[in-house]
Amino acid sequence: MLKFKPLIFCSSKKIITIIDQTRLPEKECYIDLKTVDDVFNAIKTMKLRGAPLIGVAAAYGLVLAARDNDIDSITTAADYLGSARPTAVNLTWAIERMMDIARRSQNLYEELLNEAQMIEKEDRDACQKIGRYGSSLLKQNAKCMVYCNAGALATSGIGTALGIIYTAKEQFKDPIVYACETRPLLQGARLTSWELTKNEVKTFVICDNMAATYLPEMDLVVVGADRIALNGDTANKIGTHGLAVISRYHNIDFYVAAPLSTFDFKLDKGSDIPIEMRAPEEISEFNGTRILAHQTGVCNPAFDVTPAPLITGIITENGIIEKPDREKIKQMKNSISDKSRRFQTGSQ
Amino acid sequence: MLKFKPLIFCSSKKIITIIDQTRLPEKECYIDLKTVDDVFNAIKTMKLRGAPLIGVAAAYGLVLAARDNDIDSITTAADYLGSARPTAVNLTWAIERMMDIARRSQNLYEELLNEAQMIEKEDRDACQKIGRYGSSLLKQNAKCMVYCNAGALATSGIGTALGIIYTAKEQFKDPIVYACETRPLLQGARLTSWELTKNEVKTFVICDNMAATYLPEMDLVVVGADRIALNGDTANKIGTHGLAVISRYHNIDFYVAAPLSTFDFKLDKGSDIPIEMRAPEEISEFNGTRILAHQTGVCNPAFDVTPAPLITGIITENGIIEKPDREKIKQMKNSISDKSRRFQTGSQ
Repeated sequence: MLKFKPLIFCSSKKIITIIDQTRLPEKECYIDLKTVDDVFNAIKTMKLRGAPLIGVAAAYGLVLAARDNDIDSITTAADYLGSARPTAVNLTWAIERMMDIARRSQNLYEELLNEAQMIEKEDRDACQKIGRYGSSLLKQNAKCMVYCNAGALATSGIGTALGIIYTAKEQFKDPIVYACETRPLLQGARLTSWELTKNEVKTFVICDNMAATYLPEMDLVVVGADRIALNGDTANKIGTHGLAVISRYHNIDFYVAAPLSTFDFKLDKGSDIPIEMRAPEEISEFNGTRILAHQTGVCNPAFDVTPAPLITGIITENGIIEKPDREKIKQMKNSISDKSRRFQTGSQ
Repeated sequence: MLKFKPLIFCSSKKIITIIDQTRLPEKECYIDLKTVDDVFNAIKTMKLRGAPLIGVAAAYGLVLAARDNDIDSITTAADYLGSARPTAVNLTWAIERMMDIARRSQNLYEELLNEAQMIEKEDRDACQKIGRYGSSLLKQNAKCMVYCNAGALATSGIGTALGIIYTAKEQFKDPIVYACETRPLLQGARLTSWELTKNEVKTFVICDNMAATYLPEMDLVVVGADRIALNGDTANKIGTHGLAVISRYHNIDFYVAAPLSTFDFKLDKGSDIPIEMRAPEEISEFNGTRILAHQTGVCNPAFDVTPAPLITGIITENGIIEKPDREKIKQMKNSISDKSRRFQTGSQ
């Protein structure tokens, strides 16, 4: 169904090709990433974003670093890529998983390529399963509010939150999406509207501050995640917490859709999650036009943490964790197969 | 203290001079309004905005209409100006008050000028009193979150919500203001940051979706109002309702600051307040750049209604109505002097 891919690795040319997401929706530009530096900068400047896709990009970044078959340069690249953005755990998760292979590998390039492709495939499969679990929650013509972009542009597959929408659409349920624009970088307005309309989903965009007005009409809210702590507290794009509070006030179900790679089982609770602060210019300027008086301070956290009690359920590739809490997430962790568990806990 | 005036009527030249608020903060441009059409367009396009200031501008607009001393042209102008924007009741209130004079007047121009000047003076005085009542709620270095622009740019005086800040500053309390940027037209970012920093108030701007992150640090929230129904439900800039919900969740006091001219005693409850829908381009474009995919729908209500139970108190020139409800607002209405009450209820 999907009419684009945000990231393609060409193994013959050893090049990662991505859509430059900062140019959407006006221009659909593809750029090549040929070095670890290119990958770092693409993640840092959000030409490529979305927690699962960042993990996949970092994995292929380490494949690029493996061209010289030198474990030291791969280790350096791993540390460097891991520092690009602090909040999404998928970045660390993918890098740890790749390094676990690298440390035991004889044939670095081939084995890392194989692992990166596996990470990509698992992400794609997880999106499909999340889509199916999530769409079971949607009735015919369900109205769904979404936030930021947790779509195909944020993953290797059909997306997490938007994967649910696409799956429901394939099931002829014709969902209607209300996308919050998501200031300051407008991923909801720019990216979510682009991919949904490209895939013929009926879409409305509202400003973030209009949620309280439109939520009473919604059947549910579904958002992505950048990191989920053991107790279910969920870091996601700034504004998610407020949206969850208003959803609860209006008694609207609030779901998080995320693959298991987004869980950080080592973090006990949400307040332990590091929150990235970004440049004030993202708020004080727009397309080079200054929109604030000089001498004004600016605060620009890129994420916030939604407490687990505000979350109706977390939709994963292994099923929906209803009313998530520490006990249920520990159960989910324990049910993951041995092979997967090794990846979940890194090289321990 | 204030270093500008958003509206000045020159009675010798019969011209209203305003700051073009759409150009702030980049340019401090003054433009002349010479006709009723000019006033209508300035209100409609928000070159001039803020519920109390719209009322004052409409009053002076009718003075311009009175130049020919013809009651019919004044009546036509009143209907026309009254249709410029539907939500702020101050517009209707000021026009009804002016027409009450016009219908009984011998010397139309002089008496309407006198009445418009009285409306302006009362608005200025109301701001002073609101400032004093409100500042009594602020401790030293209080952190206050504000929304949109309920400042000197929105009134004939020091403002309503920001009047409280200025008064506290004069009392050496040095308040610190967190202003929500207020999408889509960014009145918080553009106007509130401009007037607060011009008057040396320490100011931070955040995106609207960051309120849930910063509210726990705040001492209180104070916003303006466009129309308050008899039961205390309050229409204000879109996003106010959500901010009130999140304030309640974080247990932060949420105040509305508004002159009595903002109360609509004829409206029983908030759901009766007409909500202005504005052009989709306010959201889909920024400075001529399209930020949404084509085929995307857009919703753009300019206001929302905050239910009275979410409001800690309404700060008026007659005192603070704590936990506002129908009973207390009726009492406030009855306590208004006979002369004022005539104005409050129009020509009945």
